Amino acid sequence: MQIIDLSYTMENNMPAWPGEESPAFEKKYAHDKDGVQVMKFSCLTHSGTHLDAPNHFFKQGKTLDQLPIEQFFGKGILLDCSMFGEKDLIPADQIKMSESKINEADFVLIYTGWDRYWGHEKYFGHFPVLSPDASKYLTRFNLKGIGLDLSSIDGIDSTDYPNHNQILGSGMIIIENLTNVHLLKNKPFNFAAFPLKIKEGDGSPVRAVAMID
Amino acid sequence: MQIIDLSYTMENNMPAWPGEESPAFEKKYAHDKDGVQVMKFSCLTHSGTHLDAPNHFFKQGKTLDQLPIEQFFGKGILLDCSMFGEKDLIPADQIKMSESKINEADFVLIYTGWDRYWGHEKYFGHFPVLSPDASKYLTRFNLKGIGLDLSSIDGIDSTDYPNHNQILGSGMIIIENLTNVHLLKNKPFNFAAFPLKIKEGDGSPVRAVAMID
Repeated sequence: MQIIDLSYTMENNMPAWPGEESPAFEKKYAHDKDGVQVMKFSCLTHSGTHLDAPNHFFKQGKTLDQLPIEQFFGKGILLDCSMFGEKDLIPADQIKMSESKINEADFVLIYTGWDRYWGHEKYFGHFPVLSPDASKYLTRFNLKGIGLDLSSIDGIDSTDYPNHNQILGSGMIIIENLTNVHLLKNKPFNFAAFPLKIKEGDGSPVRAVAMID
Repeated sequence: MQIIDLSYTMENNMPAWPGEESPAFEKKYAHDKDGVQVMKFSCLTHSGTHLDAPNHFFKQGKTLDQLPIEQFFGKGILLDCSMFGEKDLIPADQIKMSESKINEADFVLIYTGWDRYWGHEKYFGHFPVLSPDASKYLTRFNLKGIGLDLSSIDGIDSTDYPNHNQILGSGMIIIENLTNVHLLKNKPFNFAAFPLKIKEGDGSPVRAVAMID
C-alpha cells in the first residue's frame, strides 16, 4: 500500500487566511539546554491543512467530539477541475459528469491545481470556486465530506458562504488546504483525515492522507 | 471495516504530565456574536494522546517533517500486559512470548488497562513500566513504533529514561496516552497515528485509531 501525504507543513509564519494569525511554535525545552525537545504551539482550529465540522457554521451542528470516527475515513474520488482558473465558477455540470463514481464514494476531492500558489499572495486571491449549484448537487449523495486544494470552499470575497452552508448544513465535513492531490489522478484510493478530538471543536488542523492499495 | 478511536478528548484542564500545562482552548469567534465558531488553542507537542518523534530525545533524530508518511501506519498487535500493576516492571519474557507475532507487526501496542485511571491523580502515579530489557528486546525487530495506554514509556520517577532512549534511539516512534486498546484483544488490526506535520517537530497530539477489517 502506498500512502500519499496531502498536508502542508505547519510552521511559524506559514500562510494564513487574510487577516488571521499564523500558527506560532516555540521550543519550551531544547536539546542544548534541557536534553530533550518539547514545543509549545498555538493555532486556530482552521490553520493550515484542516477540517471543518458542521459546528463551524451551525451552532447545533456536530462538533469534532460528537462526529463518529467513521466520518473521517472512506473511499475517495478525485474530480479534475484543473481546467478552471482565476475567478471561474466550477459549474454543476462538471461534477455531474462523475455521478456514477460519486455514488460509490465517501469523499469527493476537488483538484484545481491551485496549491501551486501556496506561499504566494495569489493563493488567497481569486481561486476557482464551486458554484452553489455544484455544491448543492453534492449534497444529494451519501458523502462524508468534500476536500479541496483551496483555502476555502467559498470564494475569498464571499459574504454569504453558500457552499459552506450547504455542505456543512447537510452534515458533511470539509477538508481545506489539501496539497498533492494530482498524485491521485485516475487511482482508486481511501482518504483519511482524523482530526484532534477537540471538545466542542468546530475544526482541527489535520494530517490528511490518501491510501492507494 | 470497523474503526476504533484510541484517543482522549482534548479540552481545557485535561490531564497533563505533572508540572506541565494543560492545553488551552478559547473561542476566537462564537456563533452568537460572529455567526461562526473558530477556536484558538495552545498546547504542548506532547499533550494528550500524542506521538514522540526520535528528535524528542535526540538532536539528530528525525523530526515529524522528516519522517516518511509510512512511519505512521501499519499492522499492529496488542500485547496483553494487564496482569501487571502498580510499580511492576514488565519483564522481557512477557514480550518474548509473542515473538512470532511481533515479527509480522509494524506497531506493538502495550495494553495495561491503566487508562481506567485517566482523570484521576493515580494515572500519573506508579503505573507499570516496560523493563529496559523488554524495550531493548523490541528494538530487535523491524517495528515502526510502540504505543501504550500509559502517560509515558518510562516510569513517572525516571531520570535516565532508558525506554525512550532505546526506542527513539532505534528510529521508532512512541505513541502515549492511548485508550480503548482492550477493544483490540485477539483481533487483527491496522494502527494509524498521523501527526501534524510540524516543522522540526519533536512530537504532536494525534488522533490515533485502529482499523479492523
